[in-house]
Amino acid sequence: MANKSWKVLVTGGAGYIGSHTVLELLQADFEVVVIDNLSNAYKDDNNIKPECILRIEKLTNKKIVFIQCDITNLNELRDIFKKHKFHSVIHFAALKAVGESCEKPLEYYKTNVCGTLNLLKVMRDFNVKCNCTNPYGKTKYMVEEILKDLCTSNQEWSVISLRYFNPVGAHSSGQIGEDPNGVPNNLMPYIAQVSVGKREILYIYGNDYDTPDGTGVRDYIHITDLAMGHVKAMIYQKIHNSTGFKVFNLGTGKGYSVLEVIQAFEKASGQKIPYKIVERRAGDISASYADASLANKELGWQATKNIGDMCLDTWKWQQNNPNGYKR
Amino acid sequence: MANKSWKVLVTGGAGYIGSHTVLELLQADFEVVVIDNLSNAYKDDNNIKPECILRIEKLTNKKIVFIQCDITNLNELRDIFKKHKFHSVIHFAALKAVGESCEKPLEYYKTNVCGTLNLLKVMRDFNVKCNCTNPYGKTKYMVEEILKDLCTSNQEWSVISLRYFNPVGAHSSGQIGEDPNGVPNNLMPYIAQVSVGKREILYIYGNDYDTPDGTGVRDYIHITDLAMGHVKAMIYQKIHNSTGFKVFNLGTGKGYSVLEVIQAFEKASGQKIPYKIVERRAGDISASYADASLANKELGWQATKNIGDMCLDTWKWQQNNPNGYKR
Repeated sequence: MANKSWKVLVTGGAGYIGSHTVLELLQADFEVVVIDNLSNAYKDDNNIKPECILRIEKLTNKKIVFIQCDITNLNELRDIFKKHKFHSVIHFAALKAVGESCEKPLEYYKTNVCGTLNLLKVMRDFNVKCNCTNPYGKTKYMVEEILKDLCTSNQEWSVISLRYFNPVGAHSSGQIGEDPNGVPNNLMPYIAQVSVGKREILYIYGNDYDTPDGTGVRDYIHITDLAMGHVKAMIYQKIHNSTGFKVFNLGTGKGYSVLEVIQAFEKASGQKIPYKIVERRAGDISASYADASLANKELGWQATKNIGDMCLDTWKWQQNNPNGYKR
Repeated sequence: MANKSWKVLVTGGAGYIGSHTVLELLQADFEVVVIDNLSNAYKDDNNIKPECILRIEKLTNKKIVFIQCDITNLNELRDIFKKHKFHSVIHFAALKAVGESCEKPLEYYKTNVCGTLNLLKVMRDFNVKCNCTNPYGKTKYMVEEILKDLCTSNQEWSVISLRYFNPVGAHSSGQIGEDPNGVPNNLMPYIAQVSVGKREILYIYGNDYDTPDGTGVRDYIHITDLAMGHVKAMIYQKIHNSTGFKVFNLGTGKGYSVLEVIQAFEKASGQKIPYKIVERRAGDISASYADASLANKELGWQATKNIGDMCLDTWKWQQNNPNGYKR
């Protein structure tokens, strides 16, 4: 079947990863329906679609069906599946702030675990058994267990779970990017806000880790590479008629320290990023990497963008949109 | 506060473990409200309460408030908490058939994980933060993780999770006991049905395990001991004003093989139990025990009934109620 007649539901499609994946799906000619509860996306009161969706429509010159819906609402989900015949679902809708998840565990489990269960139940009832997902944080293990059990219980399901660490950057157009609420939890958006003068100084949490320069090392991945990983995974399911539960890591396999990221950002932007070393943060580890060789072998995917690209695109997005999607 | 004015909600209170715990709670003078969806309990069309609840009322000469309600229904739960001011919740409502859970994983996760989340949310909203629970099977780990996170997020919660393996037997009155639907999954109810001629022969799944006589060894616990474990745990919370998440094993610390259980049952009942050795069952392990020393030390609890008591009470219940609660 041609991509054009392949209809994909993207949950959380107005979020950071979701929006970039929607863009790549449209460019690969898929038909896309987005649902999002807008808990973490900006929408102007005069529009019915959030700003990032409008921008994607402009960039691609295509229309996106957008439905405001929370995945914890089973009946709303059912209505959407009644109206649309989906071939695949790419599932991003989730709460994802690690700090907040410690304060509001019940909300996190409800949205991430029970919301996913709702989605799976409706998919089962409407016989949509192709699912591509990235569960977040502490709920990750649970959701993967549920998906595994589901695939064991019924051989018709095809589920690909994509694991990755630190998505950064923005679309090269500078039109869509990351738009965090409040103080950013992650390094790159924080640097970006310092670079345009929205924040005074960057705090580095510890420089006594067991790494070459003492600061934490992470496997960063460009958001467009990540989005393409989801598109490739879905195409893999579509072409191979694959079944069962599969897990792939997506990453560059290369780690960068906090100081290296700052350096790369300064080079890409020509801006000086002032920083201050402070105490370690609870829960941080020294280093984490992904081995993405299986994704390369099976899905034919690999990261194409390096740390310089990640910084350059972040800088472009932040310059064009110092206040995110709010104009 | 006197037990008399201490109001306890028991979810799944019409089930096997729930009903025995309700009985012990009433005998310790607590006020009890039972909710149950009756998915696994017999109710006569002419009554509004299930048979086991009626029998407990008769045995104790006390009244039980019974509400038919499914814990996956958040609004119904809310209404119940609006109407009743609970001091503690003992949570048994769960699906618990291991075989079925492999066929219907979504239903199991929904009831056991999301149902528990509903309950916790309503408890939080109504400031009832004393919870005693026994999560089942594959959802056990998830529910314990949720409870741990919840206790970490808010120091007012007091949660005791009780772990145990194989509850058997019945109340010594012979009036309440285990009433499985269809073919029993577990050894003791199967033996009991063979003993009264409801089933022809007992199948033993493998006699080549690494145990003294080759058949599987399990830590059986008398249902009344188990019920008392829940009562003691709740009293512990009540008296010590305890907070945080605690786990206790409940067990006898003694294992019995299938052949030993048969022998004990034959001795207690005077009936011959014909059996046949067949192939191992998938998923069975050779032996499992509980070390209940912490429960003894902290809760002042210990098992008081031996394998002979377990068999005798099972036999009494089965003789009096060859068809379970259906008269």
